[in-house]
Amino acid sequence: MTSTEDPIRNGVDTATLFATLDAVRATPEMAKFQFRATNRWVSGTHNQSTLHGFHGATQEMTHKQPFTYDADHPAVLVGEDNGPTAGEFLLHALVACLTGGIATIAAARGVNLDSVDAAVEGDIDLLGTLGLSDEVRNGFEQIRVSFTLRGDNPEKLAAVVEQSRQRSAVFDVLTNGIPVAISVDVG
Amino acid sequence: MTSTEDPIRNGVDTATLFATLDAVRATPEMAKFQFRATNRWVSGTHNQSTLHGFHGATQEMTHKQPFTYDADHPAVLVGEDNGPTAGEFLLHALVACLTGGIATIAAARGVNLDSVDAAVEGDIDLLGTLGLSDEVRNGFEQIRVSFTLRGDNPEKLAAVVEQSRQRSAVFDVLTNGIPVAISVDVG
Repeated sequence: MTSTEDPIRNGVDTATLFATLDAVRATPEMAKFQFRATNRWVSGTHNQSTLHGFHGATQEMTHKQPFTYDADHPAVLVGEDNGPTAGEFLLHALVACLTGGIATIAAARGVNLDSVDAAVEGDIDLLGTLGLSDEVRNGFEQIRVSFTLRGDNPEKLAAVVEQSRQRSAVFDVLTNGIPVAISVDVG
Repeated sequence: MTSTEDPIRNGVDTATLFATLDAVRATPEMAKFQFRATNRWVSGTHNQSTLHGFHGATQEMTHKQPFTYDADHPAVLVGEDNGPTAGEFLLHALVACLTGGIATIAAARGVNLDSVDAAVEGDIDLLGTLGLSDEVRNGFEQIRVSFTLRGDNPEKLAAVVEQSRQRSAVFDVLTNGIPVAISVDVG
């Protein structure tokens, strides 16, 4: 990049991006993050999470504001539809991770994006989670993500999506699994 | 349950719950659901998902309203903090699924809940997703969920949490992994 080139591409400040990567290379401890959520049951299947504080870059941090989200079941699943289901938030997490990666990787490679749209589908047979079959798994059987990108040349755009897949935190978690520990205080 | 007992427990209409389970036992095809999300890139790491339509109980359905959610990175991760990160939405999905299950299972078992609170933590070393190490995974290394329940006797409350874990769709997906297919139109 020459000194006269605009460092902003796809809304990503590439000067800050490269400076951040250099800083983390110099001090790898900065890359250790902890993300958090708190959740409170409201009634029935309705509950609400708050996302605010996190640890990163060797310090405690917060978002500009606390973000709160309701989850519920629709009436057909014995809820009151005060929010989407947990499974839909999972689909949102996956596509948000991939799309954020696409914009960042494209900017780092000098590839201009005009638009990135995606549709996600997750198939689930509720016989598992409803406890009506031990042969059906509880969760999604498969998830499909369909991206439509417009911008610089098609080959470069396809390569950006592939690189985002290869480095996506949520794609990794969903396809490879992770340990989840649950502790309970029933006072 | 006698005919004079209130069917509403923990905000769950247990009469509807048991009727739903009977209906699905009679017609297992009703249990096949498909959940969906669409996502549009806004700028940089900022993107927005909409959750509205889904398929279930042999028909196309929609939530009462479209739910839209912004995702972004905080400034320390070269974003503008217009929403939480994708990883935080993943933590929300996990705890929302477990808590919805706790309320439903407790109601079905005749266990009364006073409160259910949870804190979730996910540890992630960003050296992986930033492409700075091939030895560090992209996603969370571990997630911990800490529940605090108050209500009927502690043993029953603990058993309800354990049953929710055993039947949680999102817990299954996160701990066991699932296939995710990605297709790309760069037309």
